[in-house]
Amino acid sequence: MSGTNSERELIAEGPAIILVEPQLGENIGMVARAMANFGLAELRLVNPRDGWPSEKARSAASKADHVIDGTKVYETLEDAIRDLNFVYATTARERYGFKPVRAPVGATKTLREKFKAGEKTGILFGRERWGLSNEEVALADEIVTFPVNPAFASLNIAQAVLLMSYEWMKSGMEDLDETAFQPVEQRPSTKEQVFGLFDHIEEALDARGYFHPPEKKPKMVDNLRAVFSRRGFTEQEISVVRGVIRSLDRFPRRRPHAVPEKAEDLGAGENSGNGSDE
Amino acid sequence: MSGTNSERELIAEGPAIILVEPQLGENIGMVARAMANFGLAELRLVNPRDGWPSEKARSAASKADHVIDGTKVYETLEDAIRDLNFVYATTARERYGFKPVRAPVGATKTLREKFKAGEKTGILFGRERWGLSNEEVALADEIVTFPVNPAFASLNIAQAVLLMSYEWMKSGMEDLDETAFQPVEQRPSTKEQVFGLFDHIEEALDARGYFHPPEKKPKMVDNLRAVFSRRGFTEQEISVVRGVIRSLDRFPRRRPHAVPEKAEDLGAGENSGNGSDE
Repeated sequence: MSGTNSERELIAEGPAIILVEPQLGENIGMVARAMANFGLAELRLVNPRDGWPSEKARSAASKADHVIDGTKVYETLEDAIRDLNFVYATTARERYGFKPVRAPVGATKTLREKFKAGEKTGILFGRERWGLSNEEVALADEIVTFPVNPAFASLNIAQAVLLMSYEWMKSGMEDLDETAFQPVEQRPSTKEQVFGLFDHIEEALDARGYFHPPEKKPKMVDNLRAVFSRRGFTEQEISVVRGVIRSLDRFPRRRPHAVPEKAEDLGAGENSGNGSDE
Repeated sequence: MSGTNSERELIAEGPAIILVEPQLGENIGMVARAMANFGLAELRLVNPRDGWPSEKARSAASKADHVIDGTKVYETLEDAIRDLNFVYATTARERYGFKPVRAPVGATKTLREKFKAGEKTGILFGRERWGLSNEEVALADEIVTFPVNPAFASLNIAQAVLLMSYEWMKSGMEDLDETAFQPVEQRPSTKEQVFGLFDHIEEALDARGYFHPPEKKPKMVDNLRAVFSRRGFTEQEISVVRGVIRSLDRFPRRRPHAVPEKAEDLGAGENSGNGSDE
């Protein structure tokens, strides 16, 4: 999915992502891409199997060049975390020990607090095949593990980095339901507008003898009004619905496949999947 | 990362994942794997470019065979969602329209409520290159979009499915900090145990003339006690620390690289990264 706006500010802050002995360049590249998606930029590699730099990594990073270019390589995990204040180890395997174990939400909350306090933090990710050794986990302050399906728990390294990066971005958002864009702003309709719609529909139907027999008209009107008020229309939607009725009411049916006369009338079709049975 | 326990119940419920004209079998396989990780099982494909079944998909699914085997193929998107009650469209591009736009947390909350009410739901994902058309988005009830870095917003399809599947699993959890395993259960120490530690340390140091000059001893003791009470030790940790002091106190220094005599004493080393500066 696209949607990148290169004129918008590049977010690049937060915990370092530390990959311990990653094997495949593709995976390193996909990690860089996942980091860039959620505003992380500092990638550290401990002994990458196939060396560094890696063309495969750059290609898989899909233009997350700022992450690839800034990647640092270390010989030992100790060297890679020496300057950090607080480190998480990710693991899917149960570890017996004293270290606190967090889910991603709690861990990124902690990381965000430490970030705000000016601490340098990192998250360790193990090898593709067997993760981190107990000795490597022991170097971390706390453990983070993912709430996966117990019967199918194997996450690949780029996916694990993606989830932590995503939770990192969310930890900085005040409103978890914040989105990059919103629908066209709409005002709820007033009752007067709803009554206008009722009148319009009922007049058009009445002109066609719809309310038959006449003694049933009050009940039929009640039912119609129930249908058209249940939806909670906005002003714009009322306008679209009235456009539909106006068109049906005023214009005769043409030959098959004729193009509707007024662009306004197309709106209701696009929206009908949304409103038809709610 | 491994950690799969094949004896545990396979979770397989929740919204259908619908891929519209997916191009690469590898991507379909990675989608299946991401779904299985978080307990989703129903995969639907609309016109997969390279046909179905796909050996590349099965291979990339890393044993999520139950998802691959149950995958259904449809000729049109309408056919693929005909039996569903409520459908989300995922998109990274801004869409101008009336449909509500949600972030993953809000969207999966809605999906979970509908699931509990017995409704059938689905989530649409577009083509690798350009996502969903406006006409396809129009078939959905609501839109879901990801809180990505605006300057680097391109998520691949398997990553987008992963995030929605992950949020789906979280939407069913009462405690968002729930994890698959927990550290060894520990009781906070009592004050008596802390005082025992103080006495032990102070006696061992006193026996070596540590508190010098004598008039400074009260202040030195205060400082020591501050250091050893700040950590909030648990019972087990107190026991490990006392093992360390006992060893230092009782046993003479050996030749370099000698092996510690008692296994108990090793515990403190593993834990020291955690407790040293908190």
